[in-house]
This record gives sequence, C-alpha cells and structure tokens, in this order.
Amino acid sequence: MTEFFKNIPAIRYEGPDATSEFAFRYYNPDEVILGKRMEDHLRFAVAYWHSFAWPGGDPFGGQTFDRPWFGDSMDLARLKADVAFEMFDILGVPFYCFHDADMRPEGATFAESKRNLDAMVDYLGQKQADHKTQLLWGTANMFSNRRWMSGAATNPDPDVYAYAAATVKANMDATLTLGGQNYVLWGGREGYETLLNTDLAAERAHAGRFLQQVVEYKHKIGFKGAILIEPKPQEPSKHQYDYDVATVYGFLKDFGLEKEVQVNIEQGHAILAGHSFEHEIAMAASLGIFGSIDMNRNDYQSGWDTDQFPNNHAEKALAFYEILRAGGYTTGGTNFDAKVRRQSLDAEDLILAHVGGMDTCARALKCAAAMLESDELEANRRARYAGWETDAAKAMLEGGLEAAAARVTAEGLEPQPVSGRQERLENLWNKYI
Amino acid sequence: MTEFFKNIPAIRYEGPDATSEFAFRYYNPDEVILGKRMEDHLRFAVAYWHSFAWPGGDPFGGQTFDRPWFGDSMDLARLKADVAFEMFDILGVPFYCFHDADMRPEGATFAESKRNLDAMVDYLGQKQADHKTQLLWGTANMFSNRRWMSGAATNPDPDVYAYAAATVKANMDATLTLGGQNYVLWGGREGYETLLNTDLAAERAHAGRFLQQVVEYKHKIGFKGAILIEPKPQEPSKHQYDYDVATVYGFLKDFGLEKEVQVNIEQGHAILAGHSFEHEIAMAASLGIFGSIDMNRNDYQSGWDTDQFPNNHAEKALAFYEILRAGGYTTGGTNFDAKVRRQSLDAEDLILAHVGGMDTCARALKCAAAMLESDELEANRRARYAGWETDAAKAMLEGGLEAAAARVTAEGLEPQPVSGRQERLENLWNKYI
Amino acid sequence: MTEFFKNIPAIRYEGPDATSEFAFRYYNPDEVILGKRMEDHLRFAVAYWHSFAWPGGDPFGGQTFDRPWFGDSMDLARLKADVAFEMFDILGVPFYCFHDADMRPEGATFAESKRNLDAMVDYLGQKQADHKTQLLWGTANMFSNRRWMSGAATNPDPDVYAYAAATVKANMDATLTLGGQNYVLWGGREGYETLLNTDLAAERAHAGRFLQQVVEYKHKIGFKGAILIEPKPQEPSKHQYDYDVATVYGFLKDFGLEKEVQVNIEQGHAILAGHSFEHEIAMAASLGIFGSIDMNRNDYQSGWDTDQFPNNHAEKALAFYEILRAGGYTTGGTNFDAKVRRQSLDAEDLILAHVGGMDTCARALKCAAAMLESDELEANRRARYAGWETDAAKAMLEGGLEAAAARVTAEGLEPQPVSGRQERLENLWNKYI
Amino acid sequence: MTEFFKNIPAIRYEGPDATSEFAFRYYNPDEVILGKRMEDHLRFAVAYWHSFAWPGGDPFGGQTFDRPWFGDSMDLARLKADVAFEMFDILGVPFYCFHDADMRPEGATFAESKRNLDAMVDYLGQKQADHKTQLLWGTANMFSNRRWMSGAATNPDPDVYAYAAATVKANMDATLTLGGQNYVLWGGREGYETLLNTDLAAERAHAGRFLQQVVEYKHKIGFKGAILIEPKPQEPSKHQYDYDVATVYGFLKDFGLEKEVQVNIEQGHAILAGHSFEHEIAMAASLGIFGSIDMNRNDYQSGWDTDQFPNNHAEKALAFYEILRAGGYTTGGTNFDAKVRRQSLDAEDLILAHVGGMDTCARALKCAAAMLESDELEANRRARYAGWETDAAKAMLEGGLEAAAARVTAEGLEPQPVSGRQERLENLWNKYI
Repeated sequence: MTEFFKNIPAIRYEGPDATSEFAFRYYNPDEVILGKRMEDHLRFAVAYWHSFAWPGGDPFGGQTFDRPWFGDSMDLARLKADVAFEMFDILGVPFYCFHDADMRPEGATFAESKRNLDAMVDYLGQKQADHKTQLLWGTANMFSNRRWMSGAATNPDPDVYAYAAATVKANMDATLTLGGQNYVLWGGREGYETLLNTDLAAERAHAGRFLQQVVEYKHKIGFKGAILIEPKPQEPSKHQYDYDVATVYGFLKDFGLEKEVQVNIEQGHAILAGHSFEHEIAMAASLGIFGSIDMNRNDYQSGWDTDQFPNNHAEKALAFYEILRAGGYTTGGTNFDAKVRRQSLDAEDLILAHVGGMDTCARALKCAAAMLESDELEANRRARYAGWETDAAKAMLEGGLEAAAARVTAEGLEPQPVSGRQERLENLWNKYI
Repeated sequence: MTEFFKNIPAIRYEGPDATSEFAFRYYNPDEVILGKRMEDHLRFAVAYWHSFAWPGGDPFGGQTFDRPWFGDSMDLARLKADVAFEMFDILGVPFYCFHDADMRPEGATFAESKRNLDAMVDYLGQKQADHKTQLLWGTANMFSNRRWMSGAATNPDPDVYAYAAATVKANMDATLTLGGQNYVLWGGREGYETLLNTDLAAERAHAGRFLQQVVEYKHKIGFKGAILIEPKPQEPSKHQYDYDVATVYGFLKDFGLEKEVQVNIEQGHAILAGHSFEHEIAMAASLGIFGSIDMNRNDYQSGWDTDQFPNNHAEKALAFYEILRAGGYTTGGTNFDAKVRRQSLDAEDLILAHVGGMDTCARALKCAAAMLESDELEANRRARYAGWETDAAKAMLEGGLEAAAARVTAEGLEPQPVSGRQERLENLWNKYI
Repeated sequence: MTEFFKNIPAIRYEGPDATSEFAFRYYNPDEVILGKRMEDHLRFAVAYWHSFAWPGGDPFGGQTFDRPWFGDSMDLARLKADVAFEMFDILGVPFYCFHDADMRPEGATFAESKRNLDAMVDYLGQKQADHKTQLLWGTANMFSNRRWMSGAATNPDPDVYAYAAATVKANMDATLTLGGQNYVLWGGREGYETLLNTDLAAERAHAGRFLQQVVEYKHKIGFKGAILIEPKPQEPSKHQYDYDVATVYGFLKDFGLEKEVQVNIEQGHAILAGHSFEHEIAMAASLGIFGSIDMNRNDYQSGWDTDQFPNNHAEKALAFYEILRAGGYTTGGTNFDAKVRRQSLDAEDLILAHVGGMDTCARALKCAAAMLESDELEANRRARYAGWETDAAKAMLEGGLEAAAARVTAEGLEPQPVSGRQERLENLWNKYI
Repeated sequence: MTEFFKNIPAIRYEGPDATSEFAFRYYNPDEVILGKRMEDHLRFAVAYWHSFAWPGGDPFGGQTFDRPWFGDSMDLARLKADVAFEMFDILGVPFYCFHDADMRPEGATFAESKRNLDAMVDYLGQKQADHKTQLLWGTANMFSNRRWMSGAATNPDPDVYAYAAATVKANMDATLTLGGQNYVLWGGREGYETLLNTDLAAERAHAGRFLQQVVEYKHKIGFKGAILIEPKPQEPSKHQYDYDVATVYGFLKDFGLEKEVQVNIEQGHAILAGHSFEHEIAMAASLGIFGSIDMNRNDYQSGWDTDQFPNNHAEKALAFYEILRAGGYTTGGTNFDAKVRRQSLDAEDLILAHVGGMDTCARALKCAAAMLESDELEANRRARYAGWETDAAKAMLEGGLEAAAARVTAEGLEPQPVSGRQERLENLWNKYI
C-alpha cells in the first residue's frame, strides 16, 4: 500500500442520513432497481487521465498538484497504477478507462512507446487480476504530442496517418488484452483551425476510411466490444468533425458504419454543441447508436470544457431517464470524465469528488427509474401521438403528398391546437426527484 | 405607380467614388468576373417577408412600421405586390422569394386561403411578365399560425400533417406556375420545446417521409428546380431537427434523399449553430448538397436570429470564396433574408439597406474571385496535402490498419510537424480585400 | 366568478406524498423556517403580464392563447382583473405585480391612457380590498409602444423623455395608491442598436438624471417602498445600460443613488449576462443593493430570455442560500416573471405552472435554510479567511504597498497553496438537497 | 545577431500593391493622419509573452514551438531578449510590453526571482538604449505560479496578499526604471471558482485596498505613467471581478480611484463579456477611463480567449473610430496581445502575423480617420440629439419629474418616432472602408 490515501476508509453505503463525508448516501451497489443491481445499471468507471495524469494546469497557470508519481519513468508509471487501484478499491468502482499516454511514459520513438505500453499492459493486467476493477474502455491519446497538432487520421501528412494507425492498433491490442469492453475514439485534433489551409473533403474521406480500418481490425482480432466515437464540437480545434451525435450519425451512414460504431456522449461536449445532455442521449437512442457516457458537467457560464463532477441529480435524472428508455447500457458505462478543480489539492478531494459524483448519479438513476415505473410521463407521450396509430394516419404516410392533401379538402380539416402540457410534465418529473 | 418610393431613383452603378447614397459602388451587373456577369454570379433576391410583411415587432414591442398595405384584404395584398415590384425595379434585382403567408391574406379555411393564394399567383405572374424580377423560390409558412405551434410534418396530430401536405402542395404548385427555380422548406416548428412530451423517433420518421413525398411530388409535376432544406439549430423551437448542414446531411442519407435535396444556408443560422458561414458552405459543398444562400448577418453578441443586412465585405469574401470553389450557384442565389431594424422606419431605409447589402456582396465576390484567380491560397492548400498524391499514401488508404501501422516500424517513422501558416494565409486573404 | 378556472380547486399543502397535481407538496405558507413563516420568507407574486396579457406569440408566430378577456375595452380589462384575482385566490399568493400596459387599455392619447389607468387602479383597489393578494410592485411599460422604440429616458427626442416622466409619475402614483411595496424600472429600450447613431454619454446622463428625479418624486409623495432597477444585458436592445448588477452599481454610484435604489434580479437576465443567478444575488448583497427577485429560469441552450418557470430546486437552493445570507427580503419578494410555454393553452397549465414554481422555490428555501442552520458551509468559509482576522493582516491593509512587500523579505514568505475544497463543499450542499 | 530570424528582412512600407509578403501595405509610420504621424497614432507594442514565452500549448496538448531560448537559465533569458529586440527591429515597433515571468527565470525564492528580475531589467535597459523600441507597459504575472491559484490580492491567505504587494512593487520599480509609460494589472485569478468557498465582500475590499496602495506607491515613486486595469469576465476563473469596463468603473468609484486608474481594453475579453470591442472603448471614453488597447481578435465561435491577430480592418475601423473620437491615446498604445496559432511553427510566422496585424490596424486607422474627417456620421449623430440643445430640454433635466410630466398634458405631447437610420449609417461606414 502506498501512503497516498492513508486514513481514507473504503466508501460504503450508509443511506441518506449518513453523517460521514466518506460514505455513499445513495449509491448502494446491490440495491435492485427495475430488476437489476444498481452497480450493473450504472457501471461506473474512473478516468485515469483526470485523476492520475492531469497536473492541475490551465491555459493561464501550471501544475498545482503535487503527486509522488509525476514524472516519466516506468517506476513512476507503476506507482501511479498502484495508487489508481487503491482509489478504485476505496470507491468500489467496477471499471476504469485510460489513454495510452495516461499510463505509460512516452518514448523517444514509436518502438519505445510501444514497449512501455506493453509493459504497462502487463502490469495493469496483474492489477486487474488482483482487484475488482476492470477496463471499461481504452483509447489512444492522439492530441497531446506535437506530432498530432494538425490531426491524426486527418493530418495533411500521410505519415501521421500511418502513425495514427500504428497507435490505434497498439491501443486496440492493449484493450483486447486487458478485456476492455469498448474502444473509444475522440478526435480533438480531427478538425481545423482555419478553412484557409484545410481540404475538408479529403480530411473527411481519410477519417472515414480510418474508421473503416478500425472496424475491420476489430473483427480481425475478434474484439467483441463496441467501437465508440465521442462527439465534440470544438476545443482544442476551432471545428471538430465529430461535432455532435447527429453529425456523427451522418458520417457513419456515409461510410457504412452506422451498425458498427456507437457514440460515447459527454455532458460537457453536448453543452458546447448547444444541446442538453439528455438531448444527445435521446437522439443517439433514436438513431440506434447509443453506446456509453462520459459523465461530467459543464459550467453553464463558461465557454470551454470544464469537466466538473456532476452535482445536480434533478438534472441528471433527465439523462438517466433517456438511458433507461433506451434500455440501459450494454457494453457502455458511466465514465467520470471529470476532474477535481485545480485548487482541490488533497487526496481527500479526489475521493470526495467521486463520492459526490457517484451519489448524484445513483440518486438520479433512482428518480429516473421511479419516473419510468410510474408510467405517467410515458402515458402522456403515448396519448399525445395516439392519432398516428390509426390506419388512416399510417396510410397517409404510405401514400403521396396529394392523397394527404386531398384529405384536407375532402374532410374540411381545420385542426385545432392542443396543449403541450410542458409545465405539467415538468411537475411530474419533479414528483419523482 | 404608388407613392411609397416617390423621389427615390433607380439605383445605378457609379463606382467606388460615387457620392450619392442612391448608387451602387461595387455592384455592376454586367461586369464580367471569372467569365460570368456579376448579376449571374450573385443572383440577388429580395425576401418578400422581411421587406413587405414584417411590421417591425420584436418580443418586447409591437408594430413600428406604418405601411399603407398592412391589413388582410386582397386589395392590400395587391398593393403590397405593386410596391414590392417597384422596389425590385429600383434595385434591379433579378429575383424575389416568398412564403404564401407573405403575399396572400390568410383565409378562414384552407379553401379560402388557397383561393387567395391562387389569385395572388395570377397577380404576381402578371407582375413578373411586366418586370425583370422573377421568382427564385417559394415556400410555405408553416410556423406562424397557431395550428403549427407543435410542428407541421412532425406534429403529434396527423391532421396537421395532412394540412402541411396540402399547404406544401399548394405552394409547390404556385412555385411551378411562377417559374420558381427552387422550392424551400424551413422547419422552425419541426423540433421540440421539451423532450418530456416528444417522440423523437416518430417525429423524425414523419419528417423524413414528408420530405420523400415532397420529392416524389416534385417529379410528378415536372418541377425542375431544386428542393432546398434550410438548416437552423433553434428559435423558435428549443431544438430544431435541421440543426445544421451536417445534421441535414445525415437526415437526407437516412431517407435516401442526399441526391434529391440540397441546403439553403443562412449566415445567421450558421452562427446560432456555432459555425462560421463559410464553414457551412464548405461543408455543404464537400457533401455535395450546396444549393443556395440566405444572406444576412447575425449580431455576434446576440443569441437570437437578428437577420441584419451584411455589411462586412472582408468577412463575406470568405463565404463567396467557398461558393466560387464549389462552382457557384446553379439554381440557387443570394437571397437577402434580412430586415431593416425596427427603428428604420422610412422607405429610404428599405432601399439603402439593400443597396448596402448588394454592394457588400458584390465587393466580396470581387475579392473572392481575385483570391481564386491568383491561385495563391489554392497552391498552398495543394502543397499541404501533396503527400496524399503518392501511390504509397493511396495504397495505405486501400489497405488495412495493420499495413499502415507496419510502415511505422518498418520505416522508423517519426513524422515532424510542419507549420500550418494560418496568419500567412490570412494575410493573403487580406491582400485581395 | 368567471368560468375560466372552473373545476380547479384552491391549492392546498398536502405534503411530499400528495397524489393530486393540484396540491402543494412543499409550499406550506404557515410552516416556520428559521423563525419566520414560509409565506413571509418567499413573498410570492404573480406577474400580470405573462399570465394575463401575453397572447402566446413569439418572433415566428402569433397568438396561441384564446382568452375571453383579450381585447382593448375597459370591460375586458375588468374581466381580466376578475380572472387574475381568481387565480391569485386559487394559488393563495400574497402579491402580484403589473405594468400599466398589462392592466389598462392603451388610449389614443396620454390623457385617455391615464384615465384608463386611474379607473383600473380603482378597480384593482377594490379587488385588493376583497382579496388577500396585494401589490408587490408596479412599473411602467416603456418598451412596447412604438414611441419608445429608441428609448424612454434615453430617447434622442426630449419629448419622449417628458412622456416617460409623465408615465412613470402616473405609475408611481398608482403604485402608491394601491399600497405597492416597491416601484420597478426595467429599461429594455434604454440602450442602443448601433453605436453609430448613439451618444452614449448623453444617454447615460439622461438616464441618471431621470432616476434622480424618480427618487426625488418618491420622497415628495411619501412613497415608502423601494425603487428597484432590473438589470438586463440585452434583448430587446443590442446593449442595455443596466447590463448586470455590477454595472448598475457603478451607475448608481455615479449619480449618488447607491443608497436610494436597489436591484430586482432576474435569473434569465443573469444568465444572458454570463452570470449564475446566485452570483448576481451575492454581488448585490455584497454591494448593499439587493432588493427583490424576478424568479424564472432561462433555457441554458437558448440565447434569448425564455422566462420559464423554475423547476430545479437543487439549483435554486443556491439562490435562496444567498438571499438568506443577505438577511432575506425586506420590501422585496419572489415575483414569477415566468410564462407558460405558448403550447400550454389550458387554464390548468397556468395554475400548474405556478404550483410547480412555488413548490420548487419552497423546497429550495427549505434546503437553503438547512444549509445555513447547519453552519457547515459557513464554518468552512470562515476558516478559509481566518488569516484576515489577525492584527498583522489588518495592519497590512491599512499600510502601504511597501510595508506589505517588506514582510515578504523580512519573513522569507513563500506561501503554500491550500485546497479550495470545492467538490467537498458541493457535496455538503447536496447533503441538504 | 542570433540566427533565429536570418534571411528575414526589415519590414518596410511598400504600399497596397506590394508584392512581397515581407512588406507593409498600409502601415507607413511617417504618414500624417489627422495631423499626427501614423506611428504616433498607433503606438504599436509587441507582447513579450505570446511571442517569446508561450510554448504553443493548449488544454489538450503541450509544446509545439521549438525555440532555442526555451529554458530557465539567465543565459537563455538574455538570448530571448536578444531575439525579441531583433524582432522589434525587423518590425520597427516603437514599444513592447512584458510580465516579469516572461523575461526572467522564476527563482526558488522571492529574493532569487527579484535578483533575476533586476538583472534582466539591466539587460533590457541596455537593449532599449541600443534600439528604438521602448517599454509601453510592464505588469506582474500573478496567475501562473501555483501560489496564485486562489487569487493574488484577493487570496484568502494574507501572506499571498503580501507576496502580491512585493511582486507588484518590484514590477512597478522595474517599469519605472525602464521608462515604461503605463503599469497594467490583469486579475485572472482575482475572482472565484465557486461562491461556496468565497467571501465576495472581503475579496472585493482587499482588491480595492490593494489598488489604492498601488496608486499611493505610484505617486510616492514619482511614476508618471498611467495605472491600467484590464477587464476580463472569466477564464481562468469562473468569474473575475474586473468583468468589463462598466464593472471596473463601479469598482473604481467605490474606492475613489476613477481619476487615478484607467482601463486597458482587449478585444477578446470584450467578446467574452458579451460586448463588441468598440462598445468597451466607447463606454470607457464616456466614463473618462479610456487608457490603452490589447489588440487581438477572438474567434466568434469559440468560448475562450483565442488571442488571434486581428485581420478584419472593416471591423477594427469601428474600434479606431471610437479611439479617435476619444482623442486618441495619451500614454496608451496598441499592444498585440495576440499569439500565432500553435501550428504556426516558423520564425516567419511570427513576423508575418505581426505584419498582418499592423497592416490591419493601420488600414483601420486610415478608414476611421476618413470617417471622422468627413463628419458625415457625426453630423447625423448631432442632428439626432439636437432637441437636447434647447433650453426647454435642459430645464426639464434640471427640474423634477412632475415638471417634465406636466409638459405632456400642457402641450398634448404625443411624440412620433423617427427613423434611426442604422443601415444608412452602416453604408456610410462602408464608404470609408
């Protein structure tokens, strides 16, 4: 055991009246909700990068965190993994997620980086064998190193495309080895800074072909998990090709991948794209591409990705309601793509941030389940669209514009508006909060 | 002749040193740019709604304009048309655009509205015969009347869908009769206010089928123009299904319409969706769905659709550059979906707003043409992507992830970043402004 | 009794497990919180304009509501008042608020408008005498009529300034007569559309002098209530002079009014200005100008004022926490400057929207009171700043830069950062939600 | 001479038809505009931080620039200064600006940092003696080091306040020594991340007292330059106390500093606060606190501070118009707080970015001067407010609300709106572009 979390107890469920800060008040892994254990509903994951690799910097200031594992050696990478699994144990989370760059030192060459990766995969494999926590997904960091500054798969230089291919292959192999349930691609540099130097059509074509190659390779190696694209509209790039769920869907359709690839939706990215979180989930579900969640919150007054821990269960209940309506996760989960504020320096802050986030989600899930179980909202929705269940309405869709139009004159239709009842439905939502 | 524009002369090109406000300083219809007359490049259209139907209201105040044609009778509708064509003559614009609701009084029933529409189509047809100005596109207003409050094709009530079908059919017929070159659909109410009462999947399916019916009807009646969707992310609805160009593309792909339907892109809507205007044009061009433009500008500090006249040629040059790169308009044009401010009460304001907007576009077009003709920007772009012209690069795309990855180890690739030269290219742009 | 709300019962407190929609689950007027009745804490007011005068229009569509009192006659104005007080009774609210334009027909001249106002003041006075509900505040609508299009007190035309003076005088008199506890000024047109035609310095000077005249008149007539400015950054104007609380404070200081005038803070306006609601309240309290609240919520994805009913008590608890920390309201109150969505057509929607809003606030108040009573948050805050209680720290503020600087060298100070504990405090907040 | 800019010639004015990229097309230092040399109007300054200290990192990626002077030694600091003055010579700029942290290595203690600062002040002093370029302003970086993470003057820890005092004192001394014409304070960490741990009133009081101490010290040491506050609404903090010009004004008034302190306005910060650049300048001028400019541009689609070089002279002409109307700079200047994009790796990019920015400003200045000289816009503005020049209007301001109101009835006033002529004025602006 390292000293990092010394004196911090394992977090246990103590119920809403818990007096200790170091207790769950809502997250009760074994409690059965809608026929499933809460842990199996929520499938929480800790993000390696924010909690163990981020130094606390922002665009106007450098490192604030003082972590014993910061540095570039393999020894420190192993120490980092030791501490990480200690935190996973304290929290009792079933999953974690990583980028290669979070958990292995960058090498001077691709080969050295690969050797470091392989060694850390071994080490993490042993960790997983000895602990409860397993890999939800792996991914490649193709945005931090300067080689990616103009894109990875969409780089004007085909050598960078090759490097990206080698990097993703290595990470898919690592994910397979570690039993990861999904493989994620987030294209923070797959976009542009200025149209003036960008060949949009070529870059999009390369991105599409790259994703096809990823899917082909997945099948070749027998990876059974999902391939997930994580939409984001901008930041770091001025424009990113995976802008939002609807954009990704059009892209997948274009490259014949809409049955092969799903989305990993992040609250903060949804907000930056002008959507609510629940919108993006509902949209993905309606398009058949809902996969997983990067859970966090974005400050509503900040125009960049703040990656804060969620803390409003009333709001998140709307998101979990859409997840439950979509049938819940299969391979996906609730990954905390969230970081403590750079002023939250202490080991306790790391733990308590996750405790608060997990409780917020657990409480939101319970509210959402109650909303669904009561069927009040759904009954209203069904009633609102009931007219479309008639044969006449179905025939109208089958037929042409003229036939539909003819009904208006034939029947002298002058349809009258009916209340949408929004506030009433919002009260219903609140009834279950 | 009505009295409305009395004492306002026809606007003529007088060159950059023109002293009169009532002159074009850049718009010179017969001047040849890149082998085509300027008028044929720009294909300006005046929007009937903003200039002749809008009373000057905003969410916090009512009518400010005092127009002799305001009211609901057919006589006033004809007076409005008379004044409109007087303005078209003064400006010398080749085109105009309308919604049914702009140019005919709403009737008490569908039948009466249709009779009013037909009568006004006759009247406008005579006007077109007697004047230069022809119809760029027609469209149906399916957002102002309370019957549309919960959507047209996406309404929970199938009778409203029927009403929408009858309305679009009537407007497509009117557009065909008047020789319109396009038919536009803007779905301001095709969206939702709250997910709580919305069946996203059903509404999207209805919208898709409706659009298929529109395309089928187009072919049936032999309409040769383009069907155009106008994207907008929100306002009036909280979310609109035609969010932006990339979203519309995914929608078209899903319903097999990407070869049948194009987009009509508005600057203000692009801004509200988080994009630059030139981005949306370039994206549409790269997806093969660029159709037409609703030219205006959005205030960069206001979060709603301000529909102002464009007044910054340097900025618009970037938009026209993308239009020229896309090969220019075919059936599309530059429609001023712009309104004078509600404090701009006078007839002169209406004229001068268009003069300024037309000059801004003409100047922007000339700059864009010079940028393209010099080939400096394009040469830089070609050079940046030149690596992709090699056989090795092409083979890498054809092959799989492993082959691409193998190159990295085989060749010991460690690609070095190359300057993106953004500021240099921005200087180049400015060289032609 | 009118028929409008027939079959809708008076709303009573039934507790969190209430099954009826027509019951309060949290608002229990007589329940004592922190030594004060809940009704006396919250001081709810209904806004006449949104609930009784707004027809349901938006920038893209007209009237949706079908109210028997819509129209311009005095009879209809009295019917409107009858229905309004029926709703006040059903809700049991202690207060309402109005603009002149909400409750009296506009006359053809100032004199006629004034006669209508006086007559309605009589009528409302009788209503107040017969009902529980009294006037929280009155205000003048100086933004809807076209005469105000370029401003009221800031109009380039001094005759409009005079008209504004006459209008405000009439409304202050009316407010005094009806026992109103505050008088509010919201300057939706006190701003500009373009700097090109605006004399900022003159307009600001006129606005300042106007406000001084208002304060002088208040004292002259013996009005004991507060004068309140309502900040808003923009909409309808591109820029409004009362941008936010801090801006208003500077303005008040400049005209010597910071002891005479307070602010009426609206959630939606705070959001448009880039602030959280609780920020604006805390800022006003710290500047000594906190007065009253316009309670609503703004859609976080919409860039205009959506004036929705609040529905997230967790979020509102932060606002009420700041109100309680500031000592609560004196003459102020919680006015629902909120409107049902334009699709919410039914009388029931009007009632249920207020029920939901009142319950959200009541629940938020209870959470905030518990947060304050526990003292956990405040204890942390005191501890964080405890260093400033030392004599050395106080002396450092009294002294000069050099003395403060000298301590660094003398004592070899190298201060080490301490955790800000944000997530921990957010968990604490959640403990009381 | 270092090798860094080898082969890059000194930039000279060659006029609009210049063919070389390495030439000014508009910036002609000795050209007289409105009676003053262009160089004396514009007073360009290069920012040491962006051009020489920034490594090219962003929140998602690290260093991209490969500069021979990167590192922490005094030798490298001197090399950096050598290169900087080589660039100043190439550009012919009259001024530069720095933070202490840009130009001296951070020491292990305050004393060591101070020694480094003093040594570099000597070195820069020699540089200034040997070159044309002088110091426009100095400032202290009190945001990057982790000690400032919770604020400098507003830190909960009074020791950090002392450290801030010592730091500012050292920088004011350095600025005085180097003949700097202004001293700037930008409070990126003077704000908060969460209200839950913040004592707004205390922090504001400390900030106010600190600024008073700065002003007292300025007078004590005989510094004749201006003290400038640079407003910014947020980033890095969630909320910053110097939100915008109007907020700073209220703050200055509160601490009796409105005659002592002016503002340094940045385009990007104005945009983030919801204002146009020209608004902030006009507001500052109308309040008598306009000082200087941080010239850059913010991407209109990005919600963070992009600090790009300006490239749209039409837009900037509106800013320079307000500067000219305000009488131009006294001690202030046009400081390029702008950085080349992180993909712009080459020495040439650094030079060309400044060339483009300087030309954009020069062209904008010329347009603005022409606008002012023609008097067309001002004549319109005077005419619009002419009514306020009458004795009756002035008397109305002097008198009370009742007297003003009495005019309405006495004279039967029903003021009629007059066109605001916005589009016409925008055309006028364009006439001079």
